Amino acid sequence: MNPGIKVFAPASVANVAAGFDILGFALERPGDEIIVRLSETPGFRITQITGAKGKLPMEPEKNTAGFAALKLLEYLGETGRGIEMEIHKKMPFGSGLGSSAASAAGAVVAVNELLGRPLEKRALLPFAVLGEQIADGAYHADNVAPSLIGGMVLIRSNKDLDVHRLPVPKGLYAAVVHPQVEILTKDARNVLSDTVSLQQCIEQNGNLGGLIVGLYNSDLELIGRSLNDVIIEPQRARLIPHFYEVKAAALDAGALGCSISGAGPSIFALCANSLVAETAGKAMSKVFTEAKIGNQVFISAINQEGATKC
Amino acid sequence: MNPGIKVFAPASVANVAAGFDILGFALERPGDEIIVRLSETPGFRITQITGAKGKLPMEPEKNTAGFAALKLLEYLGETGRGIEMEIHKKMPFGSGLGSSAASAAGAVVAVNELLGRPLEKRALLPFAVLGEQIADGAYHADNVAPSLIGGMVLIRSNKDLDVHRLPVPKGLYAAVVHPQVEILTKDARNVLSDTVSLQQCIEQNGNLGGLIVGLYNSDLELIGRSLNDVIIEPQRARLIPHFYEVKAAALDAGALGCSISGAGPSIFALCANSLVAETAGKAMSKVFTEAKIGNQVFISAINQEGATKC
Repeated sequence: MNPGIKVFAPASVANVAAGFDILGFALERPGDEIIVRLSETPGFRITQITGAKGKLPMEPEKNTAGFAALKLLEYLGETGRGIEMEIHKKMPFGSGLGSSAASAAGAVVAVNELLGRPLEKRALLPFAVLGEQIADGAYHADNVAPSLIGGMVLIRSNKDLDVHRLPVPKGLYAAVVHPQVEILTKDARNVLSDTVSLQQCIEQNGNLGGLIVGLYNSDLELIGRSLNDVIIEPQRARLIPHFYEVKAAALDAGALGCSISGAGPSIFALCANSLVAETAGKAMSKVFTEAKIGNQVFISAINQEGATKC
Repeated sequence: MNPGIKVFAPASVANVAAGFDILGFALERPGDEIIVRLSETPGFRITQITGAKGKLPMEPEKNTAGFAALKLLEYLGETGRGIEMEIHKKMPFGSGLGSSAASAAGAVVAVNELLGRPLEKRALLPFAVLGEQIADGAYHADNVAPSLIGGMVLIRSNKDLDVHRLPVPKGLYAAVVHPQVEILTKDARNVLSDTVSLQQCIEQNGNLGGLIVGLYNSDLELIGRSLNDVIIEPQRARLIPHFYEVKAAALDAGALGCSISGAGPSIFALCANSLVAETAGKAMSKVFTEAKIGNQVFISAINQEGATKC
């Protein structure tokens, strides 16, 4: 069997503090692997899924990676092409780390590579977003965009997919802890009020602005002050046992800021360097471990590559 | 009489589109003039106010410039010092151009100069904000900060006066039209709903983020797409007759974006260069003139100096 093309697509942290639905960043690990190869049998097929414990559909139309690939192939007029895809899930599901977004991003990069790269990477974004929509129901890019193009990404408009890479201060590291607690994205959405006070909206706006200025100016203190979500975090924190203890542990360990990753239950902390991130990660993990909640910690720089052939 | 020290303090545009309460910029003109001089009679006095048609109180405690000066003198332990202040208002009142903020900013710069500059300019901000609060009732810095330090200024937090100068693309110009229509700041506040939808808040956040990124990257198209206020403008537009026609005229003339200046009734447009700003200013003015509403137009680069001795 020909080895095909293998793509690594990284996990990502979305809803970065005040950037609910519009700010996300990619991690160096964990991530999914997508393998594609040409086949003599016409049409697109998923031939193998590992790491998903039978939870993911093999039908391309129902699978985030499959649907993203199909939409791209449609656009390219290549639906007749014989293509086989393997999906190797290497990160936890429902963790708030953009698992479905990673698979969708990996799928479009893999298919694009297989066909000789007809599109630029950024042009693949709409297809990956459509793929993730299968899993998530919402058309938004704050996981898919960083997973695809890497970096810290602002989405000015999800509707228009107006996405912008932000600079990241040298050495900035993330510590992410994933507790073994189940939160459905749907529940995490339902817990949110449809309205916010004008005053909260202004504060959130100020903090998002401060965070972006801090990133451009490598002003770590400003980044720290700005990593403050006054709208979503207070509503979702109760879905994650010991959230505030974990956050306090991260900040005590020197993290710049700490909040919920995506819709949770993972919790991320941004740190000035890898050493602080290691310390913060251990402190966050300890809270869960002492509460007898299994957990996994990821320490990672901001991934600047996004989904890439490996 | 000794000539004293004369300070020019510029008008400013606050509530810059998606930056309600947290983003403002200074104009090169119009602006107020504040003159201070030492006197042998102890204590601080306002000796003259021009251009205000008797509308401004001479008592320092009730006057924005006076109160700002008093608060600064208190901080410096100089309340016994004999100081006389003249206030020359050279811009319209209640216009949405930060008239009271300009006087407050000018006052603290003038007193600071007179006393041999004991404080850095940025350290004067809290006193100027207290001064403006006399006129406006609210403790916010989105007019005072640009009027004082110049430039395009983000206020991450009004409570903490966490203010940040943003870069401005070379050549960026503002066209501002002030129609002779009265809006009280209080009414402009009362018309606003206390709540906004989460979706609007996210859009506003995205647009503020896009605007900041556009400013850092000198991306004029992004600035244009981001100069979009989905929360405040739709609520206040009806207080300004012909607002949407004026806005359309500005955009048709090539402006990047157009919205309400401060609490109105002035309307600002940001433009790629002075030529477009001239054209946009004429087009905006024409709408009011044809509707038999007197109006004044100001065409200005972004003032990078703020309040300065002249």
